[in-house]
Amino acid sequence: MANQDDQFKKVISHAKEYGYVFQSSEIYDGLSAVYDYAQNGVELKKNIRDYWWKAMVQMHDNIVGLDAAIFMHPTTWKASGHVDAFNDPLIDNKDSKKRYRADVLIEDYCAKIEAKIDKEVTKAAKRFGDAFNKEEFVSTNPRVLGYQEKINTTLSRMAKSLENEDLADVKALIEELEIACPLSGSKNWTDVKQFNLMFGTKLGASAESAMDLYLRPETAQGIFVNFLNVQKTGRMKIPFGIAQTGKAFRNEIVARQFIFRMREFEQMEMQFFIKPGTQKEWYEHWKETRLKWHLSLGMGEDNYRFHDHEKLAHYADAAADIEFKFPFGFKELEGIHSRTDFDLSQHEKFSGKKLQYFDPEENKSYVPYVLETSIGLDRMFLAVFSNALQEEALENGTTRTVLKLPSVLAPVKAAILPLVKKDGLPEIAKEIIEDLKWDFNVVYDEKDAVGRRYRRQDANGTPFCITVDHDTLEDQSVTIRHRDSMEQERVKISDLRNIIKEAVDMRSWLMKMK
Amino acid sequence: MANQDDQFKKVISHAKEYGYVFQSSEIYDGLSAVYDYAQNGVELKKNIRDYWWKAMVQMHDNIVGLDAAIFMHPTTWKASGHVDAFNDPLIDNKDSKKRYRADVLIEDYCAKIEAKIDKEVTKAAKRFGDAFNKEEFVSTNPRVLGYQEKINTTLSRMAKSLENEDLADVKALIEELEIACPLSGSKNWTDVKQFNLMFGTKLGASAESAMDLYLRPETAQGIFVNFLNVQKTGRMKIPFGIAQTGKAFRNEIVARQFIFRMREFEQMEMQFFIKPGTQKEWYEHWKETRLKWHLSLGMGEDNYRFHDHEKLAHYADAAADIEFKFPFGFKELEGIHSRTDFDLSQHEKFSGKKLQYFDPEENKSYVPYVLETSIGLDRMFLAVFSNALQEEALENGTTRTVLKLPSVLAPVKAAILPLVKKDGLPEIAKEIIEDLKWDFNVVYDEKDAVGRRYRRQDANGTPFCITVDHDTLEDQSVTIRHRDSMEQERVKISDLRNIIKEAVDMRSWLMKMK
Repeated sequence: MANQDDQFKKVISHAKEYGYVFQSSEIYDGLSAVYDYAQNGVELKKNIRDYWWKAMVQMHDNIVGLDAAIFMHPTTWKASGHVDAFNDPLIDNKDSKKRYRADVLIEDYCAKIEAKIDKEVTKAAKRFGDAFNKEEFVSTNPRVLGYQEKINTTLSRMAKSLENEDLADVKALIEELEIACPLSGSKNWTDVKQFNLMFGTKLGASAESAMDLYLRPETAQGIFVNFLNVQKTGRMKIPFGIAQTGKAFRNEIVARQFIFRMREFEQMEMQFFIKPGTQKEWYEHWKETRLKWHLSLGMGEDNYRFHDHEKLAHYADAAADIEFKFPFGFKELEGIHSRTDFDLSQHEKFSGKKLQYFDPEENKSYVPYVLETSIGLDRMFLAVFSNALQEEALENGTTRTVLKLPSVLAPVKAAILPLVKKDGLPEIAKEIIEDLKWDFNVVYDEKDAVGRRYRRQDANGTPFCITVDHDTLEDQSVTIRHRDSMEQERVKISDLRNIIKEAVDMRSWLMKMK
Repeated sequence: MANQDDQFKKVISHAKEYGYVFQSSEIYDGLSAVYDYAQNGVELKKNIRDYWWKAMVQMHDNIVGLDAAIFMHPTTWKASGHVDAFNDPLIDNKDSKKRYRADVLIEDYCAKIEAKIDKEVTKAAKRFGDAFNKEEFVSTNPRVLGYQEKINTTLSRMAKSLENEDLADVKALIEELEIACPLSGSKNWTDVKQFNLMFGTKLGASAESAMDLYLRPETAQGIFVNFLNVQKTGRMKIPFGIAQTGKAFRNEIVARQFIFRMREFEQMEMQFFIKPGTQKEWYEHWKETRLKWHLSLGMGEDNYRFHDHEKLAHYADAAADIEFKFPFGFKELEGIHSRTDFDLSQHEKFSGKKLQYFDPEENKSYVPYVLETSIGLDRMFLAVFSNALQEEALENGTTRTVLKLPSVLAPVKAAILPLVKKDGLPEIAKEIIEDLKWDFNVVYDEKDAVGRRYRRQDANGTPFCITVDHDTLEDQSVTIRHRDSMEQERVKISDLRNIIKEAVDMRSWLMKMK
């Protein structure tokens, strides 16, 4: 665990040091759970977004894009259920004035009991040595069984109370468990209240006409309300999809883990409209297709797993997450949800407009079912970045820090380095840049010894270093160094474009999905 | 004027009909001054954004990107002056309960007098025929002179009162002019009050700790607060720039003209950090460079003009607009502003942090000056779209509607059409799509006669139609039709990629800037 924490801290500080992610408004001591993407981060984020867009929209005849506004008519969020049900149960400690999620307090309490079980197990394992059978121990040891019983009854009571909106019982549970505020140590709690996670604002200036708006908590609804306009003007036939990337906002109480859970974040969502009854096959299709997309980036098959939801949201008849192995363990990276006709039917009800599709093959109209794929762009960024950051032991006994980003996503594709700052080498380097910059993001670097510059570009994630030396004047060739293998080869300047293109072109990366 | 209105209406209805721009939340009867970009609009907008980014960031060694969050620490907006001074003077009519911008009421009043002058001129022109000298007439006719005097005194008094924040006098002026509410006809007005244009929201849940936030009214400040982090981690040397695209929000009271002035909009801004004293030359440099960028799109040199600001904002020592000829006349498309060290100095003051650059050549530290280029992405979209929409009279006496978008920006690059829906032609068309879709956004269209499909693609803005016919089976060739000239030529299927690439590649379009 300590190791995981260390690795995660390295990720965060590397992201800052190499211009990937800054704390938002840092000069004003930051804004909690909000981050800015710096000069390299903006390019990595853009490349991930483009890679998704190309795979989802450009490569599919039957998927088109959309860019709906963040502001939507407030009735949208009544229809979607967010006004009534997008809540966290909160409780305040009267002494520290600190606010907590009631369910998280209870879960943290259970985690502490869980830790006690682990302790018993470790102790027993030591005592019994090779003869220790963990499964048998935990299923027979009275103390462990007691702990386990306590966890089970606590969590099931909490789940039931939350489901029944019995917030008084959630408070009673916290009091019975004698949970204290981690800050003040006091057990002096307020009642539990539901707190809506949507950010509100007001549109218009006049007191009479001002409209209460929400910042959208998800991009999906922008697709649903535009469904019929897109279908008609785009002459789309079912099955077809609408894809969108864009900002969403949630007033998270417990926002932590860097850019994994932010209050302002970006989603990449696709809603696929299908004939009712076909959702099972499309659900399987999109689970498979989306996993292929992830695997095409070559970040290691073992780092992904499916997690099928047992408890389904009110709108879903099937749901699974693609989980990724983050520095803090396997967590949701993408969701695939079979949303039935819940959303379109709700918007029909609240808008009074028909949102049906006339199916020429069936010769009838119906409200389509929806299959959704939803991925957090910031989470994807964190997955790519944290997976890429490695410390490598070198043969000479030193270590190097290298950011092994998939080259298709790397912010800078090549650094052009004159071996020395004289003898016309900088001029040749700049000529190479003038030629390559039309097609790639490239940088010039002349400061420090060339070895040090290689290390800097390794840490920066640049797949290629191209060194101009004195021989270049004679043979019109340069040394190209590969970030991951550190191998160097001599190539013609005139071949550079093709070498880089082959390595970074989205086309060849996407081909791997086939 | 009527003509302009008609043309503008056509632009708006074409944008809806062909899937470029929809009213936001239309099924809920829309949200005022907010729009959604539809399946073609999202691609056009994305292409404009990419064309700007490539020209500004990728092509410049010394300009890097940034993607700062919409949420910023609230002190940012105190430092920038937005909390105190980003206001509109508003007045309510007590009978209609309708709210107006006081300055717009007065300007509308003056516009009516202006109309009277026009009427006098028209009358006199008729009376005097060829002998009529307009300039002489307006400078001598007593009635016209009286009108002109009235306009001048009114506007100068208003300007003075607003500058002195004498809102009581603005109200007095409205009452003296006997301006009535256009809705109720009543002159029963409230006092004039300043209304801040920023949207507010609250971060965090606890009453004690909730923080008043604003949705950023401009993207520029996200660059200023990150200036030193970018400079240091990116090892940038002055002069250098930071570029950013992103959403901004203004609670406009008078929001109209379609996507020209929206409450939620997107900016493309670049802040260029320079040595104090060099701002004049950089101002001229960026005016020229930005105009070249616009001209590279080939939308007609006569459609652009510079407008130098006489009255400067508090932060600027020089400012100019690049104006474009929109359907409703020449209006600001982009601004180039010499912002001095105003912003960075303010952030130094409010944050208590030094925001200085150590200049190795001068061997001293200073707060850099800033040269800004700022363009509205939505306005650029409207400029491109409205300029492209044309009705052409054809030789056969009919007309065609054609959207002559610069092909580098067109959402769909080519439509692949089988001449008939049988004989294996659809299969060949789909093979062509399978091959081209890796590089371009292409569509398949088999419905209706081919002439009608050509018209549909013309109206859609698609630069190329590629028709597969019976000869294709024999000669592996297709007919390629050019949208603008309507010329057709026979080409090999294997040449298609290069033909399209040459026409739509950003590289060749950007080359025109040189």
